[in-house]
Amino acid sequence: MRLAELAQHARAELSGSGDVEIDSVTSLADAHPRALVMVGDLRRLPAAEDSAAAALLIGADAPLTRKPALRAGNVRAAFARVLSAIAPRTRPEPGVHRAAVVDASAHIDPTATIGPQAVVDAGAVVGARTLIGSGAVLGARVRIGADCVIYPHVTLYADCVIGDRVIIHSGAVVGSDGFGYAAEDGVHLKIPHLGRVVIEDDVEIGANTAIDRGTLGETRIGRGAKIDNLVQIAHNVTVGPGAVIVAQVGVSGSVRIGEGVVLGGQAGIRDHVTIGPRAAVGGQAGVTKDVPAGAVVSGYPARDHRQALRLDAAVARLPDALERLRALEARLEALERDRTT
Amino acid sequence: MRLAELAQHARAELSGSGDVEIDSVTSLADAHPRALVMVGDLRRLPAAEDSAAAALLIGADAPLTRKPALRAGNVRAAFARVLSAIAPRTRPEPGVHRAAVVDASAHIDPTATIGPQAVVDAGAVVGARTLIGSGAVLGARVRIGADCVIYPHVTLYADCVIGDRVIIHSGAVVGSDGFGYAAEDGVHLKIPHLGRVVIEDDVEIGANTAIDRGTLGETRIGRGAKIDNLVQIAHNVTVGPGAVIVAQVGVSGSVRIGEGVVLGGQAGIRDHVTIGPRAAVGGQAGVTKDVPAGAVVSGYPARDHRQALRLDAAVARLPDALERLRALEARLEALERDRTT
Amino acid sequence: MRLAELAQHARAELSGSGDVEIDSVTSLADAHPRALVMVGDLRRLPAAEDSAAAALLIGADAPLTRKPALRAGNVRAAFARVLSAIAPRTRPEPGVHRAAVVDASAHIDPTATIGPQAVVDAGAVVGARTLIGSGAVLGARVRIGADCVIYPHVTLYADCVIGDRVIIHSGAVVGSDGFGYAAEDGVHLKIPHLGRVVIEDDVEIGANTAIDRGTLGETRIGRGAKIDNLVQIAHNVTVGPGAVIVAQVGVSGSVRIGEGVVLGGQAGIRDHVTIGPRAAVGGQAGVTKDVPAGAVVSGYPARDHRQALRLDAAVARLPDALERLRALEARLEALERDRTT
Repeated sequence: MRLAELAQHARAELSGSGDVEIDSVTSLADAHPRALVMVGDLRRLPAAEDSAAAALLIGADAPLTRKPALRAGNVRAAFARVLSAIAPRTRPEPGVHRAAVVDASAHIDPTATIGPQAVVDAGAVVGARTLIGSGAVLGARVRIGADCVIYPHVTLYADCVIGDRVIIHSGAVVGSDGFGYAAEDGVHLKIPHLGRVVIEDDVEIGANTAIDRGTLGETRIGRGAKIDNLVQIAHNVTVGPGAVIVAQVGVSGSVRIGEGVVLGGQAGIRDHVTIGPRAAVGGQAGVTKDVPAGAVVSGYPARDHRQALRLDAAVARLPDALERLRALEARLEALERDRTT
Repeated sequence: MRLAELAQHARAELSGSGDVEIDSVTSLADAHPRALVMVGDLRRLPAAEDSAAAALLIGADAPLTRKPALRAGNVRAAFARVLSAIAPRTRPEPGVHRAAVVDASAHIDPTATIGPQAVVDAGAVVGARTLIGSGAVLGARVRIGADCVIYPHVTLYADCVIGDRVIIHSGAVVGSDGFGYAAEDGVHLKIPHLGRVVIEDDVEIGANTAIDRGTLGETRIGRGAKIDNLVQIAHNVTVGPGAVIVAQVGVSGSVRIGEGVVLGGQAGIRDHVTIGPRAAVGGQAGVTKDVPAGAVVSGYPARDHRQALRLDAAVARLPDALERLRALEARLEALERDRTT
Repeated sequence: MRLAELAQHARAELSGSGDVEIDSVTSLADAHPRALVMVGDLRRLPAAEDSAAAALLIGADAPLTRKPALRAGNVRAAFARVLSAIAPRTRPEPGVHRAAVVDASAHIDPTATIGPQAVVDAGAVVGARTLIGSGAVLGARVRIGADCVIYPHVTLYADCVIGDRVIIHSGAVVGSDGFGYAAEDGVHLKIPHLGRVVIEDDVEIGANTAIDRGTLGETRIGRGAKIDNLVQIAHNVTVGPGAVIVAQVGVSGSVRIGEGVVLGGQAGIRDHVTIGPRAAVGGQAGVTKDVPAGAVVSGYPARDHRQALRLDAAVARLPDALERLRALEARLEALERDRTT
């Protein structure tokens, strides 16, 4: 692809010749004469100029470059768009693979693709241009919108609802029963889970993530939320639009996560907690109570992040402080002895 | 279903008319004129009385209600029973789906159901009324009892033994090799795992949980234990009857978990540790040594929970204490100077 | 098998009769007259001598035993070899199962086995004697070497490369998209992931582990590395040869893990951190900055392990120290009052 063409895809300004041919985007280390290299950090610009790269992707306010360049206000967004433009298009043929098992009452859009070994149960609906990967399983009455990618081995339990442009990675399980029991005479009586999971448009869900259905109502993942691998979302949780949940986070039952919240990797949220809009929770934090909108918390139990840092610093000084305390006691004792003699 | 009928299922006392028709159980927010609403917290009773709900499920010792009601000593247990009674019965037809692959030497009870794309290897046995979901894989000689539900994409490695009324959610893996190697000349020599996993009656296992087989002997999950999603159970672990293990817990090799133990979400247990019967481990705790029967521990390293709370509170006061320490040093120095002059 | 024969497999010295027949290796508790029992801890030797076991596996420098014995310099390595020798050989027939779906352009070695319900996409290559388990999915152009075991329900995304003698357990996902987005006007723009995952020879990967592909370049798991269950390896991570990663560890994007590193269970590593060769990270540790070669770190934030232990001990004494601090203040005040009167 010509650089000029890429500039249009990237919504970037072209500087230098638009005629150079680009066939891939590489890291600086792997640069070659048909490669575009992103320079996110200007300290790497000299090395990028000296590399074999054909052209650079750089900030709009960076100095002018010797090499042809795409100049963008949001370099990372331009990078995303360039990669989208350059990614190979290997859309599989529409249609149902002969080795898939699709119930006669399911409705598959003729432009959708159902891969081999997939199973689509009674009453399920698959929208236009959606891909159902090999071996994926769609339970009864599952509804999936248009332009989704459901990777191999995804399991969608009965009655789940998936919006448009949703991506679900392999091994993710959506709609499993919540972890709810009634204790009676030392036995855990199972509470049946009759609710469902609703996943709104433009959500992405990582590999081997588990999202439980509501007990009665819904577990809901808001529009544009992004969930990484191996995350646990318990029953009746609400994840707000645009929230970002990093790998291995655990969200307990009935938690409400506001719009634009960021949960760092391996954080855990106690049940029934509310995380306010645009709050951020540090990696491995343990959130035991509500977090206000816009707050930044970390540590266990999770506290205001600056406070948590202050406590960490104080703890690091603690062995020394204990020494000083002992010394003080000795000195004070000496003074007291002094006084009484 | 008439309320009087539900009362019988719930083992609850009926108050008011038993003739009202109930077609669903809803949250208070979703109540409608054919809905039953549970009132677990009496502060919500006025709102429940004012809602559109047809009837309430409430504690036996609650005040009398204007609406017809089911009154139960154990509200949550009654709730579980009502949901069981009201849940749609969509038992699939018994038999082996034409797109399943079942070895000729396997024994499938004629009342069991084997879903499409499932695989049942040589010598496996599936009991009466058990459901094997789409794409589930049963290794050689696996034995599964009666009335189990094995959801889609479950993998049972060879020789695992599953009791009656066991539920295993999608993506769970039972019987994978333990993580054991012998270090020799800088190489990790694999220790073959020749043991198995035994899962006793009435156990439930969550989505994407992994349970490794024993090296020589067994990994055993005791009767009625409940394991949530994304839990790791290593080789040769014993989980006692009725234990409750919340999502993302990690249990290391040869750990012994007593009867009725509760492990909070994301807790980790070091190898060879014993957790005594009815002990409770807090969320995200790191257990590094044995926990006595009935103890409650939390934090990292895990300590008696009250002690852990005391330490957390003390740490919160630490920056202030360091200030006070510094002030004391200054004042003491002044006194000492005083004395020597 | 005769004990003398096992001695050869184990590369151990035979003491006593080599003619005893061994049909299994058991724990001490399960010993029987055809069993070999490992005595790793000499305190268990008297019990082992008194057990029903036919023979013992013991250290080369242990006292002589009454029972016939295999004596080895590295008992654990000998144990691994004995188990390998004694493990049942149930290699499935080579060939492609009739219920597998293999693209015409894939190349399957005639000695390889492709299980039922497996899917092999266009251009994939499977090496000699490799087993592809039931329902496993190999994306387009995946290359797998010789003598690998890919268990049921493994998903290998397109273009991943797997070496020789690699073992991948059920539910593992290799090659899913990294968790990368460009924020623009409050929307998370997906960064396409065009890289791949390379898994070198002799690696083992646990059940339900997820390994993301590189954004542009590779995510690489070095030769002989061992990864446990439910581990998260993000995009562009490099895991050095012989590294050991215990269950539920989370490794963030672009982390570099050196040769022979050990990461304890549930540890988390912040993105772009480098862990030097042969360093060790404690269970549940949170690593926020580079770790030097050979260092041992633990806690959150991760520190030198001895320092972390010192801080834990100091914190345990903190409530008492706060008492002493208060007492000092009172005594000092008294002295000061004294002085002024």
